[in-house]
Amino acid sequence: MIRSQSMSLQGIANPEWTRSLGATPFVSPSSTCSSLLEGLPEYQRVTISGDYCAGITVEDYEQAAKSLLKALRIREKYSKLAYHRFFRTTSKYLRSTENDPIVILVYNMLRVVDVCPCPRNGEDPYSMENIPENLGFELKMKDGIVNVYDNLEALRENKPRNLPYPDLETFAIDLSPVLAMIADGPTKTYCHRRLNFLGSKFYLHEMLNEMAELKELKGVPHRDFYNVRKVDTHIHAAACMSQKHLLAFIQTTYKTEAERVVLEKDGQQMTLREVFHSLNMDPYDLTVDSLDVHAGRQTFHRFDKFNSKYNPVGASELRDIYLKADNLIHGEYFARIVKEVAHDLEESKYQHAEPRLSIYGRSPDEWDSLSKWFIDHRVHSPNMRWIIQVPRIYDIFKSKKLIPNFGKMLENVFLPLFEATVNPQKHKELHVFLKYVTGFDSVDDESKHSDHLFSYKSPKPEQWTADNNPPYSYYLFHMYANIMVLNNLRRERGMSTFQFRPHCGEAGSITHLVSAFLTADNISHGLNLKKSPVLQYLYYLAQVPIAMSPLSNNSLFLEYSKNPLREFLHKGLCVSLSTDDPMQFHYTKTRDTVQRTQLLSRGCEV
Amino acid sequence: MIRSQSMSLQGIANPEWTRSLGATPFVSPSSTCSSLLEGLPEYQRVTISGDYCAGITVEDYEQAAKSLLKALRIREKYSKLAYHRFFRTTSKYLRSTENDPIVILVYNMLRVVDVCPCPRNGEDPYSMENIPENLGFELKMKDGIVNVYDNLEALRENKPRNLPYPDLETFAIDLSPVLAMIADGPTKTYCHRRLNFLGSKFYLHEMLNEMAELKELKGVPHRDFYNVRKVDTHIHAAACMSQKHLLAFIQTTYKTEAERVVLEKDGQQMTLREVFHSLNMDPYDLTVDSLDVHAGRQTFHRFDKFNSKYNPVGASELRDIYLKADNLIHGEYFARIVKEVAHDLEESKYQHAEPRLSIYGRSPDEWDSLSKWFIDHRVHSPNMRWIIQVPRIYDIFKSKKLIPNFGKMLENVFLPLFEATVNPQKHKELHVFLKYVTGFDSVDDESKHSDHLFSYKSPKPEQWTADNNPPYSYYLFHMYANIMVLNNLRRERGMSTFQFRPHCGEAGSITHLVSAFLTADNISHGLNLKKSPVLQYLYYLAQVPIAMSPLSNNSLFLEYSKNPLREFLHKGLCVSLSTDDPMQFHYTKTRDTVQRTQLLSRGCEV
Repeated sequence: MIRSQSMSLQGIANPEWTRSLGATPFVSPSSTCSSLLEGLPEYQRVTISGDYCAGITVEDYEQAAKSLLKALRIREKYSKLAYHRFFRTTSKYLRSTENDPIVILVYNMLRVVDVCPCPRNGEDPYSMENIPENLGFELKMKDGIVNVYDNLEALRENKPRNLPYPDLETFAIDLSPVLAMIADGPTKTYCHRRLNFLGSKFYLHEMLNEMAELKELKGVPHRDFYNVRKVDTHIHAAACMSQKHLLAFIQTTYKTEAERVVLEKDGQQMTLREVFHSLNMDPYDLTVDSLDVHAGRQTFHRFDKFNSKYNPVGASELRDIYLKADNLIHGEYFARIVKEVAHDLEESKYQHAEPRLSIYGRSPDEWDSLSKWFIDHRVHSPNMRWIIQVPRIYDIFKSKKLIPNFGKMLENVFLPLFEATVNPQKHKELHVFLKYVTGFDSVDDESKHSDHLFSYKSPKPEQWTADNNPPYSYYLFHMYANIMVLNNLRRERGMSTFQFRPHCGEAGSITHLVSAFLTADNISHGLNLKKSPVLQYLYYLAQVPIAMSPLSNNSLFLEYSKNPLREFLHKGLCVSLSTDDPMQFHYTKTRDTVQRTQLLSRGCEV
Repeated sequence: MIRSQSMSLQGIANPEWTRSLGATPFVSPSSTCSSLLEGLPEYQRVTISGDYCAGITVEDYEQAAKSLLKALRIREKYSKLAYHRFFRTTSKYLRSTENDPIVILVYNMLRVVDVCPCPRNGEDPYSMENIPENLGFELKMKDGIVNVYDNLEALRENKPRNLPYPDLETFAIDLSPVLAMIADGPTKTYCHRRLNFLGSKFYLHEMLNEMAELKELKGVPHRDFYNVRKVDTHIHAAACMSQKHLLAFIQTTYKTEAERVVLEKDGQQMTLREVFHSLNMDPYDLTVDSLDVHAGRQTFHRFDKFNSKYNPVGASELRDIYLKADNLIHGEYFARIVKEVAHDLEESKYQHAEPRLSIYGRSPDEWDSLSKWFIDHRVHSPNMRWIIQVPRIYDIFKSKKLIPNFGKMLENVFLPLFEATVNPQKHKELHVFLKYVTGFDSVDDESKHSDHLFSYKSPKPEQWTADNNPPYSYYLFHMYANIMVLNNLRRERGMSTFQFRPHCGEAGSITHLVSAFLTADNISHGLNLKKSPVLQYLYYLAQVPIAMSPLSNNSLFLEYSKNPLREFLHKGLCVSLSTDDPMQFHYTKTRDTVQRTQLLSRGCEV
């Protein structure tokens, strides 16, 4: 089989922009494969015959293969439970290895009737008509997972509605074989060899068919690099503008609205002029240098310093005024600048983005506030879908006594979503906003150390009253679990479902990548796959989409020249290029071309 | 002494844009040094005491130092003769090493009264008033160099006017010690060690003063990366637009002027519609892929393939219509698209460029044609100055029997300039155009082999009737010689002088860099300095400006990751970033930010 990663950024005539594109920005791997195999007899083919498992013993080979199959089956189970995508070719293969014939996958049928909530041309995207009725279900968090009850009686009898509710013990048990196999010698050797083989095959194919591919590329009418549809699958809304854009925006607001009250500090209301006066500066004198939102050598391996770059001129006041949705001016400035970015995307016609908006879990009101912001300021754009990012900062809220335990944080994040699903009439704005939400991201510095070792004996979220932060996998499981139940409930009602798309493998332990292998539809970064051939091969086999951002990594965790993106692409992993934080990393606003330049400047013609 | 290459791209408050900026795009090295030394006591300093020539013997050290001094003196001589710049600090040092006190350099005084021909605000840049009178001098080419005679009698008596006329023999003699020293063991060791020392000192300085420099940078009011003045010192006019820009331009002309006669082919006039019909295509269907002007893997080490990329859709007809100044429509389209690029630069306010226009030396009419194009289409822009590039393709013209010998090619290139200088009244358009010409470039594939070994015995240009091409150094010397005489003549008349700024060290023999060390004000590329520590150190000592283009090199001669730009910058060589051919190498039209991205993506914060 010929793979064609070299085409994945170019030359596809009609990629569809659907709500659930996830981290597959240009074309799904399967469609590329089939188009290659069907219409192109002039390609030179590489055929390998003879002993398939050359280089290792049959015993080792069998053991490795069994482990890999087992891991894939586990991911398949978790994917289906949460209505996540599971790569179809892999799924078919898994069926073929099973002895008992399995019924056609309900999962696959379900995908066909996938809900597309995008408003058609002329429809009002904020329309509050035809909102589903109240189901009257009762909701209660149990062991950190929202349980659904048909009515009060069922709640009293503790008989939850028939939905799959995952539990920590099962998850811990499912994790352990995958954790074990990534350290298993023979499996490591086998995966390492297979990955090398994939890379070699790519180079061979490229050498033989480069010109034919180029010719094909040029033959596609009305499509070139600039007008194939591109999706920025990993971008944070608070940094989605360039530094220059933010600077100009700040200066404009100061010019036109200096006397507007924009901030309340120590009980005192301040106008824009007073804010800048208190900071001892005149926006007219600001430059991108003094704005100081750009990452550089100082942020390398310093996520703390990086986070502070979100504060223009180092002043959290300005972050609050310009980059927050929940402030004294009801996030008006933030909405305006995000809409300016959206406008640029619409102008370019072929660019789309999935910006992250934050829900912290500090209070249950956050969702209402965010959806009100979205609807009041009419932030929807046909070129944008939204991801909700939940920062892993329980420890901060706990130390400030904002929440009593980890369970409360989960409840603040997820209970409002269940309520809006059960009774959309009561949460109309949230119901409408959720139509445009693709999924959830889990964000923060992965290299932060955790004292707690995640296991089936870990305390339940309601019992997690300690001051320290739960470990990464603990966060991941509980977010997954709630999204999974929620998706099942929403699917019952014919509503859209959500993907879990955490930041994973940017830094820290490689075990993060194991947890995400089970729980995530797709991940951002995945740099640490470099360090584990077994995980890398598993991510390849399952075609887990990985949104990568070499320029971001360059300022944070990995030098540009060492970035594995190109290698992953050649081996056939399902990678895409994303911008992460244009404000911190970029110098132009032409997103697509920056991405392209990133690759080109590595001598990599994609 | 603290060097501050790290600042050379940023933070300079008032760099002047003068006509003779050459390859010093952001700030001259001397001004950076002095500003650092004067106002900034808070910097940490590195002082080295003890044995200065540690690591080599005193004899070797003395020999190496003498050779280097000799080479610098030779360059100084050639620079002054041609009114080229010679780095002042080096010049002062050379004076201090000489035993007899030397009079204050006439050269330096001359620089002060440098002619600035830029029209002031409101002045007509094409004004034909106040054009100097005819001097009535006679001109005659002798040994490939235009000689000037006061009158017919002096010409008959063969008594040329008192100007410096270089000769091939002297040049060959001056070359030989420099050629010898680049292969001399002790000198190589010495230079290698000095360069390493410079690099280490830079890193040390950076480590100690990084934060102080950043602070200083942020303190500069109203200046940041986007609004410091930037000069693209190396860009070819025929490729100065992006591929997308060219595509849109072609489509626009087709939409509005399809019935215009634009081409004469085989004696038959063709409209734009007929041209595209004969090429069997509709511009509406064109994409940047089918336009095919972009360099890629296919052009690596294939300068021939690269050159063919100048033909849109591979059709030389389109190159002729859109990218030539001398065609059936009198270069109207070319002028229009170049002016669109100029307009973008003017809009951005802080970006400038020195595009190359071609003079081939096929016929003496080329100059009149080019200057007429410039004036008729009003191509002047305050943000552009012009460089004339002369391709080294005598062999092609000779084989087509367009010229009888190499001398004729030189005459076609240079005699018209002498005529316009002696009698501007007769060549008004050329006289006005020359005001905006900065200098001359020598271009072509340096890796092309030459059968002839350049020496003092090489035939004179009038005797060069062979079919093969003269070697690189032969071209360089004769271009330099004519520019030098011309500059002396023009200086007498108070007219602007020209810099010689050849492509050099992009590929081919390192001896090219020796010839340019003598003859060039500054060079483009200089990649091969990587291969010779002695030359690299000499270019450092003389601060010869080098316009580098890593993205161009990446498609042609050197992988991006191996580009020495960063290393040169750190050692203190006088380097700048340029675009070369945006059409072939770029994806955005934001020149400055692309340049910045180039560096950033190498993990290089400049």
